[in-house]
Amino acid sequence: MPIDIAILLFDQLTALDAVGPYEVLRGLPDSELRVVAADPGVKRTDHGALAIQVEHSLADVPAPDVIVVPGGPGEAEARKDDRVLDWLRRADATSTWTTSVCTGSLLLGAAGLLQGKRATSHWTALDALRQFGAEPTEERVVVEGKIVTAAGVSSGIDMALWLAAQLADETVAQAIQLAIEYDPQPPFDSGSTAKAAPEIVELLRADSRFATT
Amino acid sequence: MPIDIAILLFDQLTALDAVGPYEVLRGLPDSELRVVAADPGVKRTDHGALAIQVEHSLADVPAPDVIVVPGGPGEAEARKDDRVLDWLRRADATSTWTTSVCTGSLLLGAAGLLQGKRATSHWTALDALRQFGAEPTEERVVVEGKIVTAAGVSSGIDMALWLAAQLADETVAQAIQLAIEYDPQPPFDSGSTAKAAPEIVELLRADSRFATT
Repeated sequence: MPIDIAILLFDQLTALDAVGPYEVLRGLPDSELRVVAADPGVKRTDHGALAIQVEHSLADVPAPDVIVVPGGPGEAEARKDDRVLDWLRRADATSTWTTSVCTGSLLLGAAGLLQGKRATSHWTALDALRQFGAEPTEERVVVEGKIVTAAGVSSGIDMALWLAAQLADETVAQAIQLAIEYDPQPPFDSGSTAKAAPEIVELLRADSRFATT
Repeated sequence: MPIDIAILLFDQLTALDAVGPYEVLRGLPDSELRVVAADPGVKRTDHGALAIQVEHSLADVPAPDVIVVPGGPGEAEARKDDRVLDWLRRADATSTWTTSVCTGSLLLGAAGLLQGKRATSHWTALDALRQFGAEPTEERVVVEGKIVTAAGVSSGIDMALWLAAQLADETVAQAIQLAIEYDPQPPFDSGSTAKAAPEIVELLRADSRFATT
């Protein structure tokens, strides 16, 4: 049986949250990766200029081995959709790994999957995890049993490489890393609140794009 | 006038080549980002599971300030499409920056834009640059005047952050880096041919997915 991987999409997701893990996990041998949504069709990402066509419903992939839940402003609406929460709970009951990137962890929380667990999210949403009984944790990738949460947006690439090593082995994961030439050389070093200038952190904290409830 | 940014898509592109720069550049203030194709409609990425809906034709964005050309196996077909090559030549004549990620540089080369220039590409495609008069260069981001080429797949994130600093300033670029929490922590260090184990490099060299002509 191939490894069955489902990436959940919804309107106003953040594109890279989903596409980072997609680009890594699609390199796994003996796997089937599908993009699913409560309502298949065009899902527009948060900026609006990029739209992804989703062809599979949640019912098409009821029991994936790996669940990947991206975030983005649209997670707030998705969190109110019982079809999404029911699917997450049922799929998690039999999954090998249940994972999230960015504010996707709030969706896992709303489904009741983070109760009493350490978890992470986009740095602006860490506090919002508490309402779901989770313990916010400032690490890039947090593994709690089979629940794996990753920090903001680009962290899904790191998370998925770790996951690839668990699902296959380290040689496969390293081959995928070389295939996507993931040898990061950011021109600046402001990718976390600990590293960015305080005024940049404050600028983004005040940015309504990052409001989560 | 907002900064006019066009990302060129085509069938069988590599998703992260386009979505990496998309997620960075969409954060620029006073900019308009559009995804364009010779034939608008659904463009299926190389793995097949992800499909992007393109709404703008090349004629809709004839003179962007910034051109971003991703790669992927589909670039070989795109390279035979005179509509694409004509658009690239005309758009480059007035662009501020003409950029590529991964084998997107072969498209720039086919349009005649790399003649006598240092350029990079996915590491498996470096030699293929020579047929277009380019000088293959193993750097992650190569700036030659207004032509900026980036290495494989994930390098587009680094390239776009550099570009954001040129188009706006370093504060904006650093704020974008923090917004996407780009503080890379790959679990392995095999993202370049210099760092990966020789057997992994050979494995991928023999992989038909990376054949370029």
